[in-house]
Amino acid sequence: MTEFIPPGTRYIDLPSPFPMKRGGALHGARMAYETWGRLNAAGDNAVLIVTGLSPDAHAAANAGNPQDGWWEPMLGPGKPIDTDRWFVICVNSLGSCKGSTGPASINPASAAPYRLDFPDLSIEDGADAAWHVVRQLGIGQLACLIGNSMGGMTALALLLRHPGCARHHINISGSAQALPFSIAIRSLQREAIRLDPQWNNGNYDDDCYPESGMRMARKLGVITYRSALEWDGRFGRVRLDQSQQDAQRAEEDPFGLEFQVESYLEGHARRFVRKFDPNCYLYLSRSMDWFSVAENVGDDMLASLARIQVQKALAIGATTDILFPLEQQRQIAEGLAAGGAQATFMPMDSPQGHDAFLVDYQRFGPAVGDFLASL
Amino acid sequence: MTEFIPPGTRYIDLPSPFPMKRGGALHGARMAYETWGRLNAAGDNAVLIVTGLSPDAHAAANAGNPQDGWWEPMLGPGKPIDTDRWFVICVNSLGSCKGSTGPASINPASAAPYRLDFPDLSIEDGADAAWHVVRQLGIGQLACLIGNSMGGMTALALLLRHPGCARHHINISGSAQALPFSIAIRSLQREAIRLDPQWNNGNYDDDCYPESGMRMARKLGVITYRSALEWDGRFGRVRLDQSQQDAQRAEEDPFGLEFQVESYLEGHARRFVRKFDPNCYLYLSRSMDWFSVAENVGDDMLASLARIQVQKALAIGATTDILFPLEQQRQIAEGLAAGGAQATFMPMDSPQGHDAFLVDYQRFGPAVGDFLASL
Repeated sequence: MTEFIPPGTRYIDLPSPFPMKRGGALHGARMAYETWGRLNAAGDNAVLIVTGLSPDAHAAANAGNPQDGWWEPMLGPGKPIDTDRWFVICVNSLGSCKGSTGPASINPASAAPYRLDFPDLSIEDGADAAWHVVRQLGIGQLACLIGNSMGGMTALALLLRHPGCARHHINISGSAQALPFSIAIRSLQREAIRLDPQWNNGNYDDDCYPESGMRMARKLGVITYRSALEWDGRFGRVRLDQSQQDAQRAEEDPFGLEFQVESYLEGHARRFVRKFDPNCYLYLSRSMDWFSVAENVGDDMLASLARIQVQKALAIGATTDILFPLEQQRQIAEGLAAGGAQATFMPMDSPQGHDAFLVDYQRFGPAVGDFLASL
Repeated sequence: MTEFIPPGTRYIDLPSPFPMKRGGALHGARMAYETWGRLNAAGDNAVLIVTGLSPDAHAAANAGNPQDGWWEPMLGPGKPIDTDRWFVICVNSLGSCKGSTGPASINPASAAPYRLDFPDLSIEDGADAAWHVVRQLGIGQLACLIGNSMGGMTALALLLRHPGCARHHINISGSAQALPFSIAIRSLQREAIRLDPQWNNGNYDDDCYPESGMRMARKLGVITYRSALEWDGRFGRVRLDQSQQDAQRAEEDPFGLEFQVESYLEGHARRFVRKFDPNCYLYLSRSMDWFSVAENVGDDMLASLARIQVQKALAIGATTDILFPLEQQRQIAEGLAAGGAQATFMPMDSPQGHDAFLVDYQRFGPAVGDFLASL
């Protein structure tokens, strides 16, 4: 079992025991986080970022780690999330393998990795853990809570479970509940991992590792993270040249890679498979399927969202997102508005699908920057 | 190796050798077909149906096989494809495992199944083989050529390779060329099969069969055949009850089925995996990736389509189709119109995605019926 922790990561211990929503508790668990900028004297300029499934806490370069982070163009002095003004915190999700405690971490009860002995993980557990980090940093209320993708779910859970935790909220390509198409995709990704004999019911190691299953899961992910429209323009029907085809496929494989789009997926998969723990992937993936804010108020999503109290909110998404479709960001804005927030829904005409917030900085940068500047 | 041939199937031998587009030839190959209605004295009332990837030639009940076919509500006396007026032929695709020669058939050179010794299969080969059946039945020109999904590709190939083969054409949820999103999905389906150790480079048998790979491929197929919109209404977030969950998962599997949508996919997969030959699936799947009419005229899709000469044409698709998106049916209509046809593009507001033509008979029935009645 390997964890993948960037240098400069800092930690805050969670209460021990840390009770989990669906039962059980973690003992001796911790959260990984990084920060940018400075908390002002009033303690009222803090911004928390909660992330999608795979990112670590290193959203951007900072003193502890000068390497570019996964949201580098968004975060820094003078950037949309301006660290000259805001004290920004990013946490690695509970259940991940990038510093925060998860299925790949050592279970103190057995002195071995948890693997499938990790308790059921819910989005709400990640929200509670993220809030604990904020409180331990001496912050009573966030100026703004920002959640992307899965983090959009985490943010809604945090707002519902910890009223008053944030004055403002930005929900990016998020969702108030998992819908069947997304559940189906994630279920298939998990099945690909579980079908790999080397997954071995969670008991793999570096030498016997479910690489094929992870590759399949990642490719399916990348397909649903982008959009057909983008790929039409980007790849069309362009083929690999013969030397590329030969390099990428075994002689005896008549069904090897032939089109650029296949090679693109293969490259993505190869870069990912050994950098994310398979059991962590399974736990985080399923926590999204379980998530629905509707359970807060009589199975009513709108009424549940309306219970959230923030002053201003922004819900953004891409028109081409098939995994967290735009309609879900519209619902979030409507629900927050019903709760009294000055809520804006901002559909972005980005061709990059669900991943647009990670690449279409021309659109997402100003949207986030203008909102924060208006506070 | 098993073929899956419905009773009442009839056969026509292909010329031997039957040359294949990408090289090689078949010897002693045959095509499976069924018919409905009667060819009139003038021989001018014939309609040919070319199918999607998996159907057999049994589109509807007939004298040879009274069981319902895969397009039963569309085909019969008084139905949209009215067999009181039309003499209808449906062929099983070349390369399939339902009667026509394919990778699961016996290779006369070795007296064993072809498996991966089957030559490269192109959509154009299927078109040539289908046209041979029509000619052998004594028909010089079809009144109408109807192609669904992959059959929409086959139909365009037939029209281009055999000018004058049909006076009229209906293209349903078809495409003039495979685009990268669809290629990516199919590539992943093939990879799922090939990754299954029991695929064994094509050398499986009934006892050692790539069931897991076929299950994954089919589930991914079903996800892309339907639409998120339909599933939201159909499944929402409804869970299986505990006894259903227990019945469908092993005790030791903490990631088993939980939501109705997962069970739906599992049911589809189980019904399919042993009813379609995996090698045939691989060959047919890749033939679609290779297909592009653009190669006919200087890599220009519109100019290539405009070379097709038919009198009237109808291109239909569903607004929610993500695999053969509506835009592709619009292109077909535009290209045929550019060639001089009286071509109609008819977008259907069906929630069922690519599969709509197999379920939304309320919309697709009148569209096809009215077009045929107008001829």
